[in-house]
Amino acid sequence: MSKGTVVLAYSGGLDTSCILVWLKEQGYDVIAYLANIGQAEDFDAARKKAESLGAKKVFIEDLQTEFVEEFIWPSVQANAIYEDRYLLGTSIARPCIARRQVQIARQEGAQYVSHGATGKGNDQIRFELTCYALYPEVKIISPWRIPEFYNRFQGRKDLMEYAEKHGIPVPVTPKAPWSMDANLMHISYESGILENPKNHAPSDLYLMTKNPEDAPSVPDILEIEFRKGVPVRVTHLKESTSKETPLEIFTYLNEIGGKHGVGRIDIVENRYIGMKSRGIYETPGGTILYHTHLDIEAFTMDREVRKIKQGLGIKFSELIYNGFWYSPECEFVRHCINKSQETVEGKVQLSVFRGQVYILGRESPKSLYNEELVSMDVQGDYDPGDASGFIRINAVRLREHHRLQGAAQQKY
Amino acid sequence: MSKGTVVLAYSGGLDTSCILVWLKEQGYDVIAYLANIGQAEDFDAARKKAESLGAKKVFIEDLQTEFVEEFIWPSVQANAIYEDRYLLGTSIARPCIARRQVQIARQEGAQYVSHGATGKGNDQIRFELTCYALYPEVKIISPWRIPEFYNRFQGRKDLMEYAEKHGIPVPVTPKAPWSMDANLMHISYESGILENPKNHAPSDLYLMTKNPEDAPSVPDILEIEFRKGVPVRVTHLKESTSKETPLEIFTYLNEIGGKHGVGRIDIVENRYIGMKSRGIYETPGGTILYHTHLDIEAFTMDREVRKIKQGLGIKFSELIYNGFWYSPECEFVRHCINKSQETVEGKVQLSVFRGQVYILGRESPKSLYNEELVSMDVQGDYDPGDASGFIRINAVRLREHHRLQGAAQQKY
Amino acid sequence: MSKGTVVLAYSGGLDTSCILVWLKEQGYDVIAYLANIGQAEDFDAARKKAESLGAKKVFIEDLQTEFVEEFIWPSVQANAIYEDRYLLGTSIARPCIARRQVQIARQEGAQYVSHGATGKGNDQIRFELTCYALYPEVKIISPWRIPEFYNRFQGRKDLMEYAEKHGIPVPVTPKAPWSMDANLMHISYESGILENPKNHAPSDLYLMTKNPEDAPSVPDILEIEFRKGVPVRVTHLKESTSKETPLEIFTYLNEIGGKHGVGRIDIVENRYIGMKSRGIYETPGGTILYHTHLDIEAFTMDREVRKIKQGLGIKFSELIYNGFWYSPECEFVRHCINKSQETVEGKVQLSVFRGQVYILGRESPKSLYNEELVSMDVQGDYDPGDASGFIRINAVRLREHHRLQGAAQQKY
Amino acid sequence: MSKGTVVLAYSGGLDTSCILVWLKEQGYDVIAYLANIGQAEDFDAARKKAESLGAKKVFIEDLQTEFVEEFIWPSVQANAIYEDRYLLGTSIARPCIARRQVQIARQEGAQYVSHGATGKGNDQIRFELTCYALYPEVKIISPWRIPEFYNRFQGRKDLMEYAEKHGIPVPVTPKAPWSMDANLMHISYESGILENPKNHAPSDLYLMTKNPEDAPSVPDILEIEFRKGVPVRVTHLKESTSKETPLEIFTYLNEIGGKHGVGRIDIVENRYIGMKSRGIYETPGGTILYHTHLDIEAFTMDREVRKIKQGLGIKFSELIYNGFWYSPECEFVRHCINKSQETVEGKVQLSVFRGQVYILGRESPKSLYNEELVSMDVQGDYDPGDASGFIRINAVRLREHHRLQGAAQQKY
Repeated sequence: MSKGTVVLAYSGGLDTSCILVWLKEQGYDVIAYLANIGQAEDFDAARKKAESLGAKKVFIEDLQTEFVEEFIWPSVQANAIYEDRYLLGTSIARPCIARRQVQIARQEGAQYVSHGATGKGNDQIRFELTCYALYPEVKIISPWRIPEFYNRFQGRKDLMEYAEKHGIPVPVTPKAPWSMDANLMHISYESGILENPKNHAPSDLYLMTKNPEDAPSVPDILEIEFRKGVPVRVTHLKESTSKETPLEIFTYLNEIGGKHGVGRIDIVENRYIGMKSRGIYETPGGTILYHTHLDIEAFTMDREVRKIKQGLGIKFSELIYNGFWYSPECEFVRHCINKSQETVEGKVQLSVFRGQVYILGRESPKSLYNEELVSMDVQGDYDPGDASGFIRINAVRLREHHRLQGAAQQKY
Repeated sequence: MSKGTVVLAYSGGLDTSCILVWLKEQGYDVIAYLANIGQAEDFDAARKKAESLGAKKVFIEDLQTEFVEEFIWPSVQANAIYEDRYLLGTSIARPCIARRQVQIARQEGAQYVSHGATGKGNDQIRFELTCYALYPEVKIISPWRIPEFYNRFQGRKDLMEYAEKHGIPVPVTPKAPWSMDANLMHISYESGILENPKNHAPSDLYLMTKNPEDAPSVPDILEIEFRKGVPVRVTHLKESTSKETPLEIFTYLNEIGGKHGVGRIDIVENRYIGMKSRGIYETPGGTILYHTHLDIEAFTMDREVRKIKQGLGIKFSELIYNGFWYSPECEFVRHCINKSQETVEGKVQLSVFRGQVYILGRESPKSLYNEELVSMDVQGDYDPGDASGFIRINAVRLREHHRLQGAAQQKY
Repeated sequence: MSKGTVVLAYSGGLDTSCILVWLKEQGYDVIAYLANIGQAEDFDAARKKAESLGAKKVFIEDLQTEFVEEFIWPSVQANAIYEDRYLLGTSIARPCIARRQVQIARQEGAQYVSHGATGKGNDQIRFELTCYALYPEVKIISPWRIPEFYNRFQGRKDLMEYAEKHGIPVPVTPKAPWSMDANLMHISYESGILENPKNHAPSDLYLMTKNPEDAPSVPDILEIEFRKGVPVRVTHLKESTSKETPLEIFTYLNEIGGKHGVGRIDIVENRYIGMKSRGIYETPGGTILYHTHLDIEAFTMDREVRKIKQGLGIKFSELIYNGFWYSPECEFVRHCINKSQETVEGKVQLSVFRGQVYILGRESPKSLYNEELVSMDVQGDYDPGDASGFIRINAVRLREHHRLQGAAQQKY
Repeated sequence: MSKGTVVLAYSGGLDTSCILVWLKEQGYDVIAYLANIGQAEDFDAARKKAESLGAKKVFIEDLQTEFVEEFIWPSVQANAIYEDRYLLGTSIARPCIARRQVQIARQEGAQYVSHGATGKGNDQIRFELTCYALYPEVKIISPWRIPEFYNRFQGRKDLMEYAEKHGIPVPVTPKAPWSMDANLMHISYESGILENPKNHAPSDLYLMTKNPEDAPSVPDILEIEFRKGVPVRVTHLKESTSKETPLEIFTYLNEIGGKHGVGRIDIVENRYIGMKSRGIYETPGGTILYHTHLDIEAFTMDREVRKIKQGLGIKFSELIYNGFWYSPECEFVRHCINKSQETVEGKVQLSVFRGQVYILGRESPKSLYNEELVSMDVQGDYDPGDASGFIRINAVRLREHHRLQGAAQQKY
């Protein structure tokens, strides 16, 4: 007699394979669900593996397009970046994956969902907040937080033994001395030898980007066209080729960025759970878009709107990082940011070269840039005398402050 | 009979030489004041030139050390950056220059100050707000905003003619088709052919940084040590050389950054005066410090303090850009930011290579990073079960929101 | 030969009557425009006066309804309040008045607009920024900033003499020793004897509200119903009467608030121009709505949305105060705030009594308040054990901080 | 054999008396700790009761002075207010109480602390975060979150039975149909019949303030003097009496405020735990100080400093409410706010009358208010012509925006 049905976010790897079997051992029916969000994976093999381990059903879902359109694009609009450095590649993947997981659970009448995220990380929160938000009555089984599970599997060795005992295929290649998470947007690396924040990352760690030392000696010059703050076309100017669908655009930017070693960072970040952790990320296409969108936005958006929107973008980034993609406040902020992008339109030319993105120029039918107004050579509709009054009035407050301080001049 | 004495911010160039003579023509005694903030300039020649043009006195002031310690260092602490991209190299030089100008004016009993900044730019504001703040009763003569002046000198040709007529030495090399401003921190380029935001910058424009295409194929690995958020030592790890005074540190970072083509940006920014303008900047040492300070700060500062401090840093950047270095609010913000830096201490190792700064690792006696706590291999003082409650409580609000929305599940 | 046509914001009072005549003297055709935004005024008499002074045309425009719906309502949604105290009654009237002025100017082919606001105040900015925003090529004549005008009219005596000389009817009642500005939302009092911030306001100053000392000894109990953050009905519970159109609702709240002496404040505020000024305001209906809207909003809006919206409301208030109602950023913020109000719906019961507004209770079909969840008597869908984990995880960061500080316990 | 020693935050009431006995039942030694923070309580009786129940030791600590100086005063400086309405009277008491509890625990070698706060409220968090922050290795026993406890005591009836059985004196007066929490700063009322947010509060609920209907018909006119943002003297102008120590000042303001029914609010607020709850508060002295401090601050603080400080104050309020008084970020914010108060000095005159606080006037040796500068009658050091330039430059951006929108005039 089954305790009920669990939809398990299954990766095909050792951990979630063991979890699948363990859940069955506990008396659950298990539906294995594997989201394709662009990671390198043999999905057919994974399906067979899950079936062979006793999954009642297996769902392998290609979420790549919705990942780009509904998660990456809003992040590009927001210039989303956590703590000034991290482009949130894992953070935005989690709600995308969990949303489908919940849909499957509802559709299959499953009361439970489960995942293999650890008990110290951010991902458990991102998965579960999404599940609770979209399926409030769901029950979540998080084995790495259940003492019977984590006490039994205290290290990789225990998992290997369990796998062998239960006929779970065991990886033949030795595990890298760190863990990684890959999707269309990025690969992240953490733990293992990277846990010592002083240790330099080995140069063979990166899988998505070439070492800038080995990058080609000739830049690629691209033109990216934006409408409403999202890219609608990327053109390679020399090759005169272009991409126009969201998935093609993003994949192509990954390719070019990867070729030139763009988007590598090594940071210490603050987890929602209150710890500092060290993470290494490579985000080639996302990095190109980050710089390019900043440029077209500054070109077309009013200064003061930009300032308010910048604040909303920082808030948005924090919400995403902490797992609140599906929350009333994140929906509100997304709406506002999207509104701000109405005029963010135009073309940016850029050079991708040896780890860097260089903005070369930009044009837009909606720019607030007024060449005549700003020109040093012509007057435009501008009276320089106005600036005197502007400065004098701005100084009223400063002069009053000084008057009060009295001896302030001595201070300087 | 003199109308009074003017302290003129004199650069040695054509514009301020003409202004010097013109001010004398208007009946003022002129004191020429030239600040050395690290620009390439023949200061002796400039002194002689000013004297020959009839300056009553000439002050040539070496402000390099105070520029680094009192203006660059606080900006490093703040991660000061305007509109996400511009490191404010010109903005922080202006109050440094104007402060001394005002000191000289007071000391020499001059009622007037003057400068050669244009009527459309930010610098007029930065100069004048500083002057009004520190010398509230000063009178400012800003020729480029005075119709008699700017109508007489409508182009470079008019200045050249005036110069010839008044024995002002005329530059022999043709002027670059853009204007530039240089100091220890950066060189900025704008106007002329750069006014069209679509035009790519010519590759020979940059003077402070090498073209990344021609940069060495071997990185330089540095270690920068911080105390209270400012660098106190930089060490070249392979060469085992190090620098320890502020000016030496910054100069050395400029050298290394320049060698590898670090810190070039091409942006459109929003002037305080309400226009968008296009600027190109190269900030080699400042860019290295920006990335390095971000790293040591994230490593040592509490997450929530960081968030508040980030907001203050954005405010600080805007204040600096707009000319409010000497204002009650900027003093307040500087105080707060400085307070936040008390524990920002430690060493960052980094690689400077082909236009990029790569952080490699970091260590600190004051880090909040707890390797055991965050480890995936050991438990540390952490109970994973706590995370369940944490997530469930965070979900209370989200589930209520969903409950209210009722049909929300259909939405997704 | 006319210099052109000026649309003058005409109040019917001495100042703008003199300005009307003075503008004609300067060679302009003058169209007098008088907005009815609820001030006590004999509009017919004002029309005749303007005609008799030589106005080419006279426009008397009833803007009361649009003032309530398009200016007061968005301010209610925003909980707009400047510097924590001032409800912005004058600030929001200015763009309303100037918008129509500009419409008339366009329609009548007038190139000029003019107003009687002083050169030290906020209103000149609010008028003129609205005009420039909506009619960028307009020319503005601001007599109180023109030396020929303000040197000629240095005091009220000069205006009186000019009036007598030019057949301008002179007020028969002596002027109050302060100036005031009245509209549907409030009356403001400033200058004159109020300029000394220590002076108490005389008790006969207030015109819109009764002295709380003389207010009735029985409260009025109202119920205000909101939809999308604006009141749609107000009911007097004992009298069972109700009002439903915006103008009627607001007028009625003024009446009840006025009767009980609600909404008087005496403050020092910071003008955009950099000065501190002292203002006294009475805003009866606006004060009732401020408290009531805060209540229904807190009842129906998610906590985190509220926090973000609060920040936007502060920004909005500052923008309004400074004259930026018609600006890209204010339009953006209004849009976002309006979006946040979608679920702000329900009824609030309140007592208006002797200078105060007391909230008594509230109900809403869209509330996020869950009586069972919050109850101390029943469990609801809530496990108290979750709070332990929540607290423990929130403490991770605090305990780490303490660990680092080491001797911190001695500190306390 | 004892399980160890617990320091229990003991109130003398039924709940914590039962907890005391229950803890002993569980095998702990119990130290009873009762903080005097100004609540009405027979402390001697409470001591005897605790001793009779078997407390190993009893600590009754008078924290009133430190509560005013270290917790209320910083809140006054910050204008601390949660969600625009709640003056945080309970929130700031918790860290004050818990700090001493932890000191006692350390001093007595107790490894445990315990309290009687419920599992749905904010107070559990405020208590425990303080304990973890100041005594990271402490173990906390929170009976209302322990199933064996809360399942045993499902209602007041169970507690009464347990009390009778264990010789715990049972209250003779029937419990009010709500719960309350009292201290020097305020009394809060919640739950019971108040849980329905539509129910009006009964008029006999309030204990600290008189019903405004019954308040005297003559106002009390006070003068409060501030230094560094905190009150240093309060004077009753008619009676010529004054108070000068923090505790006396605050107690006196409570008395005057209470007499006139000042500081009653009925709100719905957002708990940290994610629920909305309804609370009724009376904060007589705190309300007087809130209004008075706002006034002296606006009078003496620069506009832009005020804006930044306002943001910090909102953050501070949220931190306090959520229990983070002892956190790195709250310490940082307190430091910054305190810095901002250096010039907040002067005297405010005010009238306390029938539920309201009316500011009448203010004076300060450090005010930035410049009567001559702001005067409508004299020019002061101000050129009205400057405002034209100020407005024109501020309009540059607005006119550009309009230019781009093209058909915008039709819009209006």
